[in-house]
Amino acid sequence: MHRTPTYRDKPLFTPGPLTTSRTVKQALLRDLGSRDHEFIAVVREIRERLVALGGAQVGTYEAVPLQGSGTFAIEAVLTSTVPRDGKMLIIINGAYGRRMRTICDVGGIACTAIEFPEDCATDVAAVQQALAEDDAITNVAVVHCETTTGIINPIADIGAVVRRAGRTYFVDAMSSFGAVPVDLAACGIDYLVSSANKCIEGVPGFAFVLARRDALLATEGYARTLSLDLLAQWRGLEKNGQFRFTPPTHTLLAFRQALEELEAEGGVEGRARRYRANYETLVAGMRAMGFTEYLPPERQGYIITSFRYPEDPKFSFDEFYNRLNDRGYVIYPGKVSDADCFRIGNIGRIFEADVRDLLGAIRDTMDAMGFKP
Amino acid sequence: MHRTPTYRDKPLFTPGPLTTSRTVKQALLRDLGSRDHEFIAVVREIRERLVALGGAQVGTYEAVPLQGSGTFAIEAVLTSTVPRDGKMLIIINGAYGRRMRTICDVGGIACTAIEFPEDCATDVAAVQQALAEDDAITNVAVVHCETTTGIINPIADIGAVVRRAGRTYFVDAMSSFGAVPVDLAACGIDYLVSSANKCIEGVPGFAFVLARRDALLATEGYARTLSLDLLAQWRGLEKNGQFRFTPPTHTLLAFRQALEELEAEGGVEGRARRYRANYETLVAGMRAMGFTEYLPPERQGYIITSFRYPEDPKFSFDEFYNRLNDRGYVIYPGKVSDADCFRIGNIGRIFEADVRDLLGAIRDTMDAMGFKP
Repeated sequence: MHRTPTYRDKPLFTPGPLTTSRTVKQALLRDLGSRDHEFIAVVREIRERLVALGGAQVGTYEAVPLQGSGTFAIEAVLTSTVPRDGKMLIIINGAYGRRMRTICDVGGIACTAIEFPEDCATDVAAVQQALAEDDAITNVAVVHCETTTGIINPIADIGAVVRRAGRTYFVDAMSSFGAVPVDLAACGIDYLVSSANKCIEGVPGFAFVLARRDALLATEGYARTLSLDLLAQWRGLEKNGQFRFTPPTHTLLAFRQALEELEAEGGVEGRARRYRANYETLVAGMRAMGFTEYLPPERQGYIITSFRYPEDPKFSFDEFYNRLNDRGYVIYPGKVSDADCFRIGNIGRIFEADVRDLLGAIRDTMDAMGFKP
Repeated sequence: MHRTPTYRDKPLFTPGPLTTSRTVKQALLRDLGSRDHEFIAVVREIRERLVALGGAQVGTYEAVPLQGSGTFAIEAVLTSTVPRDGKMLIIINGAYGRRMRTICDVGGIACTAIEFPEDCATDVAAVQQALAEDDAITNVAVVHCETTTGIINPIADIGAVVRRAGRTYFVDAMSSFGAVPVDLAACGIDYLVSSANKCIEGVPGFAFVLARRDALLATEGYARTLSLDLLAQWRGLEKNGQFRFTPPTHTLLAFRQALEELEAEGGVEGRARRYRANYETLVAGMRAMGFTEYLPPERQGYIITSFRYPEDPKFSFDEFYNRLNDRGYVIYPGKVSDADCFRIGNIGRIFEADVRDLLGAIRDTMDAMGFKP
């Protein structure tokens, strides 16, 4: 009898791809036609559940899944929702804010930025002032959890300022949505992006936009590409429930299962509890060994944590990473501009027991390499 | 004991998503990190095998996988390989040629088209004349198998003309690559696109470009987007073997398995034999029941076939489609502009026995609906 191989893959303490449940992966094992009634119902269910996760109702907000990685959906919003004579203000305190600026530059979208140090959250008063000083700005974009460091930006306070100024508001919630509560309407969000393979714990292959319907309807003619045309993608889904272009059917089936498992865990609050417990166990254990975080605790989210390199010359990140990898634990390099860091993620299908195992492996690796943090 | 559900999904007689093998789907059941050595080796192997499938060597040609559907890769080539002051000539004899023109129009890429009726292959002399008459044209694009009808365009003859005229040559081989032999260099192809879920029989979630290295290296600064920047995507893969943005890791693992199964079937020639047998069985059976093809046989490829609607008023495509679907057979609507047709695909993990079952179901459905072709 042929048996399905049951691999025990290394747990991924990264910002993604993440560890997913066995049952999510098993939902991949079907070939459905993209016009099949069953598949169309799956897509509809996914879209409804995503809007509900944002605390909103379908009709006021709309979920638009888009093929590709999360960056594709970010680029879809940036290139589909800024008027031809509009201007984007990007709030930057990390690499993902800078990437949004690059997308605008490449796409010929007028853009200005307000930058903060990577260890500082957005200063809302500075945003208010920037909007007051430049009438040309039509849209504002910010990253919710800057995965560069793990810092959480105050999206509700920024939203209040943007709404009072009458601008369109875009939140990149890639690594937070599903695990950090977001109320779309209360935050004044017009567009929010996240992806299948972050806190909802599906497998990678598509991303999604949550759009305020009235804002989306006003974007006719704004898109600069066909594939990343947000309004056209939504209209296609509304017309007959189908994607305009071949969808990753298997990945969508897995995502529906992932949404069910999120609900079974107690929704966003339940998932937040697990990730927070992972985070607290991690940070307590790392501090006990002498490691220090890059961010002060009050700015640190529970999604991912940047730790400073030990100053001990016996520490080498590549060796540290490879030794942990050989023991079966995958951590992540740093991305902070002005400090040498590595990152450990708390998201995906990992539990406190996995974090404790990782801490043990880190302790053993320290001993083997002979460094002290 | 928990057992993996073993669904028997409906066979898909469509242009995609297609039926895939059980073993390809089982390869989806792992979570690998995108920086993992094992995953990087998988990506390298895939890229090497794809170049070999085009009869070329790595270094002369380069394979660049790209997240998203096939259309995303088409748009990547169109928006990344035309100089800022360049002009695209698109050869059109179906919906996929027209879509390329739309992509150029949306992206602000100068573009002219030469159109042929949907039941006629490209007239190569007309292409030669178009190139002679317009020095501004820098790039030429054509669809190999126009999935609209199933017609095969003469890509080698067109390539000879394009090369003599010193222009850049792009072939959309979405639904043919892997089952219709292509020699990249002999056809003078600079860029070719196909996707994971066509004749190589992976699951959907990414597409790929085969690029002549020297042509690709000359495209610095041409890209109009970040996500679809072909040169940057290739440079990222060359730098450290990693994708710039989160790859669909599961889908890539399945694709590696699909490439192994293609080789085990005898490569492109072996797969062509199976698809051709499917096609011949299908057409003989359909003709015996009185159906007629849209294309004359000498222009018809063995990928997908368009059949004319029966003129009998008792025929309704929606009812025909739904009744076949209820019996467990998925066919596809037509896309021809000037004739009512439906389509039946011969590609994916389907065999002559499946085609014979489909023919039986069509016979039963005709009887139940009471129409005669």
